[in-house]
Amino acid sequence: MKPFLTLLPALLATAVTSAIGGTPTRIPDAALTTAAQLREQALHDNTAWNFTEGLTTEVGARLAGSANDAKAREWVIAKFKALGFEKVWTEPVTYPKWVRRSEHAEIVAPFAQPLAVLALGHSPGTPAGGISSDVVGFDSFDALKAADSAMVRGKIVYVGARMHAHRDGHDYGIGSTVRTQGPSLASSKGASAFLLRSAGTDSSRLPHTGVTRYEDGVAPIPAAALASTDADQLERVLKRGQPVTIKLALDCGIEGEYTGANVIAELRGSKKPNEYFVMGGHLDSWDPGTGAIDDASGVGIAVGAAHVIAALPQRPARSIRVVAFANEEAGLYGGKEFAASHAKDIKSAVLGSESDAGADRIWKITASVKPEARGAVAQIAEVLKPLGVEYDASAPGNGGSDLSALHAVGMAGLSLHQDATRYFDWHHTANDTLDKIDPEQLRQNVAVYAVAAYLAAQAEGDFGSAPGAFANDGRGD
Amino acid sequence: MKPFLTLLPALLATAVTSAIGGTPTRIPDAALTTAAQLREQALHDNTAWNFTEGLTTEVGARLAGSANDAKAREWVIAKFKALGFEKVWTEPVTYPKWVRRSEHAEIVAPFAQPLAVLALGHSPGTPAGGISSDVVGFDSFDALKAADSAMVRGKIVYVGARMHAHRDGHDYGIGSTVRTQGPSLASSKGASAFLLRSAGTDSSRLPHTGVTRYEDGVAPIPAAALASTDADQLERVLKRGQPVTIKLALDCGIEGEYTGANVIAELRGSKKPNEYFVMGGHLDSWDPGTGAIDDASGVGIAVGAAHVIAALPQRPARSIRVVAFANEEAGLYGGKEFAASHAKDIKSAVLGSESDAGADRIWKITASVKPEARGAVAQIAEVLKPLGVEYDASAPGNGGSDLSALHAVGMAGLSLHQDATRYFDWHHTANDTLDKIDPEQLRQNVAVYAVAAYLAAQAEGDFGSAPGAFANDGRGD
Repeated sequence: MKPFLTLLPALLATAVTSAIGGTPTRIPDAALTTAAQLREQALHDNTAWNFTEGLTTEVGARLAGSANDAKAREWVIAKFKALGFEKVWTEPVTYPKWVRRSEHAEIVAPFAQPLAVLALGHSPGTPAGGISSDVVGFDSFDALKAADSAMVRGKIVYVGARMHAHRDGHDYGIGSTVRTQGPSLASSKGASAFLLRSAGTDSSRLPHTGVTRYEDGVAPIPAAALASTDADQLERVLKRGQPVTIKLALDCGIEGEYTGANVIAELRGSKKPNEYFVMGGHLDSWDPGTGAIDDASGVGIAVGAAHVIAALPQRPARSIRVVAFANEEAGLYGGKEFAASHAKDIKSAVLGSESDAGADRIWKITASVKPEARGAVAQIAEVLKPLGVEYDASAPGNGGSDLSALHAVGMAGLSLHQDATRYFDWHHTANDTLDKIDPEQLRQNVAVYAVAAYLAAQAEGDFGSAPGAFANDGRGD
Repeated sequence: MKPFLTLLPALLATAVTSAIGGTPTRIPDAALTTAAQLREQALHDNTAWNFTEGLTTEVGARLAGSANDAKAREWVIAKFKALGFEKVWTEPVTYPKWVRRSEHAEIVAPFAQPLAVLALGHSPGTPAGGISSDVVGFDSFDALKAADSAMVRGKIVYVGARMHAHRDGHDYGIGSTVRTQGPSLASSKGASAFLLRSAGTDSSRLPHTGVTRYEDGVAPIPAAALASTDADQLERVLKRGQPVTIKLALDCGIEGEYTGANVIAELRGSKKPNEYFVMGGHLDSWDPGTGAIDDASGVGIAVGAAHVIAALPQRPARSIRVVAFANEEAGLYGGKEFAASHAKDIKSAVLGSESDAGADRIWKITASVKPEARGAVAQIAEVLKPLGVEYDASAPGNGGSDLSALHAVGMAGLSLHQDATRYFDWHHTANDTLDKIDPEQLRQNVAVYAVAAYLAAQAEGDFGSAPGAFANDGRGD
């Protein structure tokens, strides 16, 4: 099936272009030559590393709405200004402020012992002193779905779905479904609290936090993730067949609203300054680590790419915007706000790509563009080939996390896929720290982003951004 | 130099035997045949796994002197009895009781952030509320040694020595020197507290605890280990050249004495029941993990080996003792007590080997025996060859951690070296959990121990155990 899918869109693109008869978007030869030079310069540029090292060392964890979130904003504004962008500004983003104070879990019976646990974002706390309940375990989201409420009522539900490491990280679908939808589902069946095996691929005794969502009309119940080691342990205890009692004490919850901001920097285009290529990452992070791979490096890669482009003798035709998005983690708040405020001039957002899967080597590019721009994407891909990047013309590309919101209202999307094999070992854990970033792979990312940004900014013709242009293209990633 | 060293003792053994004219210790052919069968049976026996799984699941962490320490003792006594040993008994061991309640560290300035830290065993606590001091950093124990007291006085000393992974784990010498001797050295120069980069080879945000020792006449200062990620972070902050202030709050300390016990089980020898081969591991563990690789598996391997030997139609000539030692972690208390109480009949302890380096494949055997017994060790090694074990006749073998104390008073020692490449990633951390044990490698360990124990118990002649026999052989491992 895969070869068929791979060939089809390429054929379609040609066919449709001829059928529609629109002018193909093209990238001039001179721009391709410059892009190849940029690529090599980026492979020797440490701006992304210095940015990522600085943010994670001088600020550290950046939970949305925390004091460090504000500190990070000031840090990034100062850094953007120092790097020589023509314009640096903020756009406010308001969201519920979730606070974590402490969490504690233990098996009370039959074998008393502590469990390594982290509350999920947006989880309410337990009553002070915690709750103690018997546990009922399921090995998948579907098993919980199929369970009779009588089995679940009054109990702590545990779901032990497992993820395995893959280059495209597709098992995150399994883990994130349990995390985001499990607590609501368990609550709808009368559970008192919810625990999951961390959505991760490691075997460290460090739980993976992450946001959950409570559906309207369902009582929010306390929800937390066990480290995989402790999920193993709980499963071994459950397998012995005796009743298992857990005590869970979470001190956390939503406390009003907070207004943060997206921080935006622009290299001003020399010919069409009102049109822009947009790239970036999110500035917030979960709190157990220092948010190095998620997502200081994402902002750092965009900053590094802009930096090598800024060093050219002249600015590209279009503007280049770097966005450090606010509160991606608790539900794409920054991305949604950006989409809401920029939807009215969506044609100006010529193409966009956000980096939010760590900093390991980019191995694939996919895009959602108009058929007439497929050739231009192939031209970009050609310049990326020496970096080991393959072009999958069969798949869409929504531009990545926050930018998927702008894509949803019509921005053409470019997805630059990082190798995610190691990413879910550390994602949302205390292990998200700078040492997990390989400077050489980080520079490869910068080279890819620099080439893509520059060529999109120099392209003759657009990529199809228009209101609702990609409304039927929701499956991109 | 290595080939020379490897050959020399073999030659020496022959030469000395001839010179002394003692009767060589020999293992009868029938025993070698039985041992080869035992080896294959052990590779299919899950007793060691079940023991290790049970102890870590049903008891968990076993800090010496804690409630769980007593629980573990009861658990092991019951398990030994159920496994059909002829005799199960305890021998009391008294030691200072160290208690950990909590620990907290943070960089206060210039960049406020928490640090992942664990107090070292035997460390006193800080005054309530913690201490805040400027930090002075060193990159090795020797650098601290060379430092002028004026640089150190009143400060928190940090030593950032690094370990790398090796099959023989030799870099632990670097880390354990800093941990055991660093606090005393820093205190002697007037430091207010001591931090080290964890003695480990991983990059997880989980610190490695372990005991420290305060020399007589030196004020015990609070001492703790930073996770390698946080050691990296502190070093990056220090490198910026501004004064760095850390707040350290430890609630821990020695609180009187505790009397635990070594737990001993015996398969009664059929011909020389008063002579015995001794093997085992230590029952206590550090508290952050569940003590799977350190050292539930060590006891489990000995139990598994005894189990396959017990399944033979008849008991071997000599007895086989399995010992679960008390409080190895805080200073070989169980081993020293065992040595003190069994020194008077040291000749009965024919040969001994303790497993205390995890459960990865055994790759090498070394021994400290009388010259006339070198041939018998070579016979044992021959049966071990199909398991991928090489015999290094050039190096001594002190029998391993606790048994090194019995070796020091004259027991012949056999060291069965586990591959320690992964061991120091998890050693003394929360990551010391059951999932780190590979059942297949564990069974290989059982096969090695079963062969060695059986053949030592069947050997005609002894291995040289006698009061003070190996007094000049202190460098064994």
